[in-house]
Amino acid sequence: MEQDRAYSLLKAVAEGRVGPDEALERLKVQPFEDIGYARVDTHRGLRQGAGEVIFGQGKTTEQIVGIMQAMEKNGQDRVLITRIGPQAAEEVGRHFELCYNAAARTAVRGGNREPSGIGDIVVATGGTADLPVAEEAAVTAEFLGNNVVRLYDVGVAGLHRLMANLDIVMNASVIIAAAGMEGALASVIGGLADCPVIAVPTSVGYGANFGGLSALLAMLNSCASGVSVVNIDNGFGAGYQASMINHLDRKERQ
Amino acid sequence: MEQDRAYSLLKAVAEGRVGPDEALERLKVQPFEDIGYARVDTHRGLRQGAGEVIFGQGKTTEQIVGIMQAMEKNGQDRVLITRIGPQAAEEVGRHFELCYNAAARTAVRGGNREPSGIGDIVVATGGTADLPVAEEAAVTAEFLGNNVVRLYDVGVAGLHRLMANLDIVMNASVIIAAAGMEGALASVIGGLADCPVIAVPTSVGYGANFGGLSALLAMLNSCASGVSVVNIDNGFGAGYQASMINHLDRKERQ
Amino acid sequence: MEQDRAYSLLKAVAEGRVGPDEALERLKVQPFEDIGYARVDTHRGLRQGAGEVIFGQGKTTEQIVGIMQAMEKNGQDRVLITRIGPQAAEEVGRHFELCYNAAARTAVRGGNREPSGIGDIVVATGGTADLPVAEEAAVTAEFLGNNVVRLYDVGVAGLHRLMANLDIVMNASVIIAAAGMEGALASVIGGLADCPVIAVPTSVGYGANFGGLSALLAMLNSCASGVSVVNIDNGFGAGYQASMINHLDRKERQ
Amino acid sequence: MEQDRAYSLLKAVAEGRVGPDEALERLKVQPFEDIGYARVDTHRGLRQGAGEVIFGQGKTTEQIVGIMQAMEKNGQDRVLITRIGPQAAEEVGRHFELCYNAAARTAVRGGNREPSGIGDIVVATGGTADLPVAEEAAVTAEFLGNNVVRLYDVGVAGLHRLMANLDIVMNASVIIAAAGMEGALASVIGGLADCPVIAVPTSVGYGANFGGLSALLAMLNSCASGVSVVNIDNGFGAGYQASMINHLDRKERQ
Amino acid sequence: MEQDRAYSLLKAVAEGRVGPDEALERLKVQPFEDIGYARVDTHRGLRQGAGEVIFGQGKTTEQIVGIMQAMEKNGQDRVLITRIGPQAAEEVGRHFELCYNAAARTAVRGGNREPSGIGDIVVATGGTADLPVAEEAAVTAEFLGNNVVRLYDVGVAGLHRLMANLDIVMNASVIIAAAGMEGALASVIGGLADCPVIAVPTSVGYGANFGGLSALLAMLNSCASGVSVVNIDNGFGAGYQASMINHLDRKERQ
Amino acid sequence: MEQDRAYSLLKAVAEGRVGPDEALERLKVQPFEDIGYARVDTHRGLRQGAGEVIFGQGKTTEQIVGIMQAMEKNGQDRVLITRIGPQAAEEVGRHFELCYNAAARTAVRGGNREPSGIGDIVVATGGTADLPVAEEAAVTAEFLGNNVVRLYDVGVAGLHRLMANLDIVMNASVIIAAAGMEGALASVIGGLADCPVIAVPTSVGYGANFGGLSALLAMLNSCASGVSVVNIDNGFGAGYQASMINHLDRKERQ
Amino acid sequence: MEQDRAYSLLKAVAEGRVGPDEALERLKVQPFEDIGYARVDTHRGLRQGAGEVIFGQGKTTEQIVGIMQAMEKNGQDRVLITRIGPQAAEEVGRHFELCYNAAARTAVRGGNREPSGIGDIVVATGGTADLPVAEEAAVTAEFLGNNVVRLYDVGVAGLHRLMANLDIVMNASVIIAAAGMEGALASVIGGLADCPVIAVPTSVGYGANFGGLSALLAMLNSCASGVSVVNIDNGFGAGYQASMINHLDRKERQ
Amino acid sequence: MEQDRAYSLLKAVAEGRVGPDEALERLKVQPFEDIGYARVDTHRGLRQGAGEVIFGQGKTTEQIVGIMQAMEKNGQDRVLITRIGPQAAEEVGRHFELCYNAAARTAVRGGNREPSGIGDIVVATGGTADLPVAEEAAVTAEFLGNNVVRLYDVGVAGLHRLMANLDIVMNASVIIAAAGMEGALASVIGGLADCPVIAVPTSVGYGANFGGLSALLAMLNSCASGVSVVNIDNGFGAGYQASMINHLDRKERQ
Repeated sequence: MEQDRAYSLLKAVAEGRVGPDEALERLKVQPFEDIGYARVDTHRGLRQGAGEVIFGQGKTTEQIVGIMQAMEKNGQDRVLITRIGPQAAEEVGRHFELCYNAAARTAVRGGNREPSGIGDIVVATGGTADLPVAEEAAVTAEFLGNNVVRLYDVGVAGLHRLMANLDIVMNASVIIAAAGMEGALASVIGGLADCPVIAVPTSVGYGANFGGLSALLAMLNSCASGVSVVNIDNGFGAGYQASMINHLDRKERQ
Repeated sequence: MEQDRAYSLLKAVAEGRVGPDEALERLKVQPFEDIGYARVDTHRGLRQGAGEVIFGQGKTTEQIVGIMQAMEKNGQDRVLITRIGPQAAEEVGRHFELCYNAAARTAVRGGNREPSGIGDIVVATGGTADLPVAEEAAVTAEFLGNNVVRLYDVGVAGLHRLMANLDIVMNASVIIAAAGMEGALASVIGGLADCPVIAVPTSVGYGANFGGLSALLAMLNSCASGVSVVNIDNGFGAGYQASMINHLDRKERQ
Repeated sequence: MEQDRAYSLLKAVAEGRVGPDEALERLKVQPFEDIGYARVDTHRGLRQGAGEVIFGQGKTTEQIVGIMQAMEKNGQDRVLITRIGPQAAEEVGRHFELCYNAAARTAVRGGNREPSGIGDIVVATGGTADLPVAEEAAVTAEFLGNNVVRLYDVGVAGLHRLMANLDIVMNASVIIAAAGMEGALASVIGGLADCPVIAVPTSVGYGANFGGLSALLAMLNSCASGVSVVNIDNGFGAGYQASMINHLDRKERQ
Repeated sequence: MEQDRAYSLLKAVAEGRVGPDEALERLKVQPFEDIGYARVDTHRGLRQGAGEVIFGQGKTTEQIVGIMQAMEKNGQDRVLITRIGPQAAEEVGRHFELCYNAAARTAVRGGNREPSGIGDIVVATGGTADLPVAEEAAVTAEFLGNNVVRLYDVGVAGLHRLMANLDIVMNASVIIAAAGMEGALASVIGGLADCPVIAVPTSVGYGANFGGLSALLAMLNSCASGVSVVNIDNGFGAGYQASMINHLDRKERQ
Repeated sequence: MEQDRAYSLLKAVAEGRVGPDEALERLKVQPFEDIGYARVDTHRGLRQGAGEVIFGQGKTTEQIVGIMQAMEKNGQDRVLITRIGPQAAEEVGRHFELCYNAAARTAVRGGNREPSGIGDIVVATGGTADLPVAEEAAVTAEFLGNNVVRLYDVGVAGLHRLMANLDIVMNASVIIAAAGMEGALASVIGGLADCPVIAVPTSVGYGANFGGLSALLAMLNSCASGVSVVNIDNGFGAGYQASMINHLDRKERQ
Repeated sequence: MEQDRAYSLLKAVAEGRVGPDEALERLKVQPFEDIGYARVDTHRGLRQGAGEVIFGQGKTTEQIVGIMQAMEKNGQDRVLITRIGPQAAEEVGRHFELCYNAAARTAVRGGNREPSGIGDIVVATGGTADLPVAEEAAVTAEFLGNNVVRLYDVGVAGLHRLMANLDIVMNASVIIAAAGMEGALASVIGGLADCPVIAVPTSVGYGANFGGLSALLAMLNSCASGVSVVNIDNGFGAGYQASMINHLDRKERQ
Repeated sequence: MEQDRAYSLLKAVAEGRVGPDEALERLKVQPFEDIGYARVDTHRGLRQGAGEVIFGQGKTTEQIVGIMQAMEKNGQDRVLITRIGPQAAEEVGRHFELCYNAAARTAVRGGNREPSGIGDIVVATGGTADLPVAEEAAVTAEFLGNNVVRLYDVGVAGLHRLMANLDIVMNASVIIAAAGMEGALASVIGGLADCPVIAVPTSVGYGANFGGLSALLAMLNSCASGVSVVNIDNGFGAGYQASMINHLDRKERQ
Repeated sequence: MEQDRAYSLLKAVAEGRVGPDEALERLKVQPFEDIGYARVDTHRGLRQGAGEVIFGQGKTTEQIVGIMQAMEKNGQDRVLITRIGPQAAEEVGRHFELCYNAAARTAVRGGNREPSGIGDIVVATGGTADLPVAEEAAVTAEFLGNNVVRLYDVGVAGLHRLMANLDIVMNASVIIAAAGMEGALASVIGGLADCPVIAVPTSVGYGANFGGLSALLAMLNSCASGVSVVNIDNGFGAGYQASMINHLDRKERQ
């Protein structure tokens, strides 16, 4: 594609329709808009198959609104904002209509894409306290057009809770396993499921969990095959990759 | 499926074809063979869609042969042994015909499955020294029936090496990015590709790489979306999950 | 037991008293109640010999009340809530009569079980600042039906304080040793006592104690035999296991 | 007891049967033998209810023999030596008849005590590679007079292997769970069993297991109640404490 | 001394002046007062040659006052309280006359002991921000009867500031070197001085100082001989040991 | 130089123009002013070629003003204060006219030096959140007389943003690369640029970034040559060294 | 430059001298040679102003020779090989004439570039044991055309050794400070010198130096301005950047 | 002293007895000998009151001999070499008569200084395996002229072993407490003794002792006053500082 465009341009130069100076400028053209504090990537939808996502943490309300306006100007009117508090969401909500999820601390503009993909994405958690991270993953996957099945509080200290839902585990296309403390959920699900498992260590716990380190190391060392790991509390990352995997069928049809 | 079998059994009990004692035994039947030092999982092929893999490290030649014999008895004659040195491979090779890969330190019995799946799995490395880990990933993916494209020594210190192969990156179904030191390859590929990226930190480096910790942390903190991580030097894990993802189309057809 | 119930069910099927469909349902029946944000384990009393305990940290007052109502519906009217602040305890106290322990930050509904078991559980601390963790352990053990002897501020910097109470140490059934800083108390008691010692590292200290790491490592490396360790500040875990050990006589009589 | 003896002594002084000088000497008498490089604790059997154990690692053959001779002189002819290689065992074996266990790297002089205690001690492992640590625990428990049930290679990646042996788990008096990598076995067993679980993290694994740290942290953060932890690879410590717990009935009868 | 007292007691028993029961009680007599939350060590002045010090951090005003009252009852009317905030000091000050040092966050009751000892204790700091820790050390040493010379802000980034005061360094009896960041001050002074140097790493800094870890490790690895280290920010510990060293002459005269 | 002055002094002594006592005093003269809590280095401008900089963090407004007054007395009327909040800046601003930069949290008295040096200093950041650190670097470099080019939000997840500005990278004299998370920006720029790159890890991120550790380790392990690293968030240090490098031409002309 | 070439090419297309297809190919041309296991960067000399350097560690003799042959084919006949043992150097020496430095473990083909640059590069070490790292830095700088002054064993424990060489420190263009243990040398030199200091932590030491971590953290936290840090034991990296800095005058003349 | 000498010199200049050139040279005179790979500090005996010590680790036999020859030339014929293996000691022994201590891995030339000082230095260890570190400390203290009392294998797991030697502890001038594992010995002794305690963490242990980290952290966090710490396994450092402290009486007499 990029090559095609370059070839067309070079052809236009060869045919005298475009001068070399102008061609040089075009080759250098920036596929993003510079709004001072951020370079909004207006082509990412095309390149990575997903609408722009704004990582809200550490951004002012003004910055978020500014980025959304730049996106709108480029036709991007579906937006997911992650890690945004209720107050900031309310402020941004004065400029754009938002759907706010308090548990996930996410805000969606423009609604979710129609669910599609190979199958369902299951989001499982070890305990109730892992819910915010799990919801961030679920909301992300839904925003990107996936059917999500929630399977919360099925930690390994009470295995029967997971066992009673084996059918959900077995029918998933991708499973996101979010757990803190010893993070054993990922291994147990990884040993049962026949689909990719994305493990999300959460910072839930205290003492020697060292802010999620215990779950992170446990998940990286999972003795089950088919498990990979994202950053501590990175529900978004898990949801995003799960969606990518669940939509690989689009690639196939190419 | 499990439910189906259980229902059939219960029906047989109801119809008097099977007595309750025997039914109890069947419900408890063990889907693995106990050979003393290991419980060989003879149903895993069914459950997880992949032949048995033996983690060779820390096992004696006798143990490996014993496990392979137990597998053979159960009809499992395709085997992948990982982390096996040349001498051990030679000894095992006296009992079973093996194909040994010295770089990957893997041995395959029974050949690779016919390549299938959604597309190609690309295995990229930052440098030459990451090759053993990358080969373990590549051999695993090939064993499990995937077409693998190798893209070695394309580290970010010479970006043009990666850029010259952008088409390979863009056409991949799944990409495995193996890199040591600062592990930046995963982020750069993650930012370019529109498919899932599985990052494998390698222990390549010295000093403050602390045995792969630097690459591990970098990959977990990747600012690119769509990247997940496996254990340091875990080429097998990356290859296994990549294959799972690349064969999700089978699920779809269900 | 589980097997007995399964056998009875199968027999009922064989005798036509129960149909296979209904049997399947019963086999799948969930021994917990799903209240949305949590799956309350209503059988745990049966399975693990202890009433339900609610880990209060990170739960809203509403969630705690909801869980307690679900437990009550299942006949569980004795409850221990750990890590609950005074305000939350007051709010929950409007729905259920609670006994609040400010030092331990615990709340008990329904009173303690009658003390029983092999002998006394001794809870020792190195200093005054370890008291909250020690009280959590003591309250837990008392809730579960144990006689508890408190032996506070007997740290190794003033050995005579411990030596003057050697008889208490010698007559214990189980000893819980809670200490921060260098955590040496566990080793000294472990070398004196002839009963199991459960060491609880506390986060008491500053600087190179790194949030309890110094005491944790010291206790794990104890040169005294008979010492095992729980998580930093995990008074509940120590009290729970101590109670389990102290009630092993019940097992014996089986 | 100590008090009784002191009282008897004081009484003897009061009655003139013992002079004050001699009494002072007796009060100061050293319950150990100084052999230069080590102070052999000849009263420990009395004090802690167990025969002397020699930690072989880092001791020369001569030192081990010397310690055993000192013990023999004091009537201690049952000895367990841990962490002793085959060659050293052979050399010591020229002076004392030993029973060597190559897997556990232990040597026993004088045979095991007759099995007694509340019930069985179950030693479970996640994988085959955890066997040396598990055997050290098992040999220790047997030496100290316990019946041991071995349950090896029942890791959580294949839960059915553990589930098929639930009766063993349910009937145990104490369970020792030895596992490396993500150490999830302790949590899963802790959630199923109704007896104390002693978790032993092993150094089995590679990469981000950091020499057993991953399993150690996971076990310390276990979400299951009733789990405590010993040092990485400390099979002896687990076996010793398990035996202490299993023999608490002796205390009860006091 | 202890032996003398024991001998006298035994003699009294032999001579019938004291009965065995009473003797037993006396032998067990506790050299501390139990006030519930703390066991005040009323003999420490005798045993360790220093008045009681109260570590204020984590203690309520009531507890501090209670401890001081117990001390007063035993004749201990000189007290140093460390890590006490201005408000707490004010509250305690309503019960006892205190001299509060805001920089050091210390309060002294009963004034300092008359300066004595072998020579001066020099307290040096790398920067202005290390002052609170240095003052804690200085106040402690002064309380215990030492002449203290302050040498602040002589960090190695401007060596001439230290060099201009070489005479102070050279004439010291003990030097306390408090520094954060890279903690090089201890090494430089250690290389210049001919007296013991006690290094106090401070938590001053940011980023990769990891709460004082950088200075701590640097000081432990000092290439200068004669340097030992106390905990991060432990000004009290440094001042206390420095005083002990400076008063060794008392020992000599014994 | 120092030698020259010493020689002149010695000559003056030899010629009787200066007495030995006075000479001794002069040799000992302190090139800094002692104002109690700080020793202001009034010669540093001479020695290190840069005006005095005050590290504001942890200093009271009074201390900052005091230091500035001491500096003024010595003719130093250009001052850079780093890590100073808006309120403190306002208070200091009542004594001295300041130019405050809210993003960088810096205040400048007396304006920037006229830009000079070999070329431009480029300050690049991975994301918007790295801006405060980058601004601290930029302000520092400008204060010290450098032309600064800002290149913000060019992180590796969107390589084209950096590629579109390759000319800026290629024409730099020194490049400061500030990035958090995986810190890959330093490696990518290091591989493209032909000038020294100073990498500044920032604490931007969450979870396994461990306060900037991930970026720090990544940058230290950069596979690109020509990259060195300063402390986490140390924008000042990067700007200072960049200026030193950019003004090496002055040395050359000597 | 890149732009110039692109412009020339586009002009040639416009003037019909080059066809668009050929132009496309030229724009994509790969500036490296793919020899299977490595992609040799044959343009790096142009891009980064330095001949190719081979990191010998982890490469076989055959690989090194292969890379050198590929380089030779592209006219690169000056090569520096780092981290190469004497035996490997001898084997490579059979194919290319090498100058081997046993202390630095480096081998040079084609001799050093003629010394040029702004001034001298000083390489200082804390102790004798830091010599290998220092020599790697010195050899690298010399290979790249710099005059190097060695100043070894001037650690801060004997400050006079450094002070006696102040003139060398003062006249340097760049200083490389290599030190292990507490790494204080970098701070002391950084406080004295008026040129950039590149600190190289070495792994020299034992115990709490944790493989160089103590020196690394100390150097990152240096209170002296103008200090940046490279990886532990990375003499090459320090020498390379020092050379870059020392040759900035070339940039200036552009 | 330094000032006196400088004053005399200046006076001589004033009186014409010394020319300014010569005076300059004298002021610059180097109190060490440069032998290429090391700068032997020939004045240290004067400056720090102790003979030169050679840290043998990482030095070749030739280097050690060379240093000793340089020392001899300067009249330093008493030498202590630490961390020297038996073979190296034998080789050095061909040039100088040495007294080798195999346990301590030390070699002494010229014998120990006559014991003097305030009192005895007690060296205590937790176990037999700490002996090498303890011996290094003892040999160092004896070399520097101290009477040393060894108190080995008195670890806290058997407190009575320490209690039986309380008189030794009570009469010490300085105590060195060397212990690995949980390092509790330092705290227990620190709580009993009334003299300074220098704690030496040893690397003895396994698993979570992390090479001595557990003992190091425990000792730094000691709740006993009067304890300071040296590097892991740094017996020499402890012995050296203990000797400094024990000889402070010399200072007093000044």
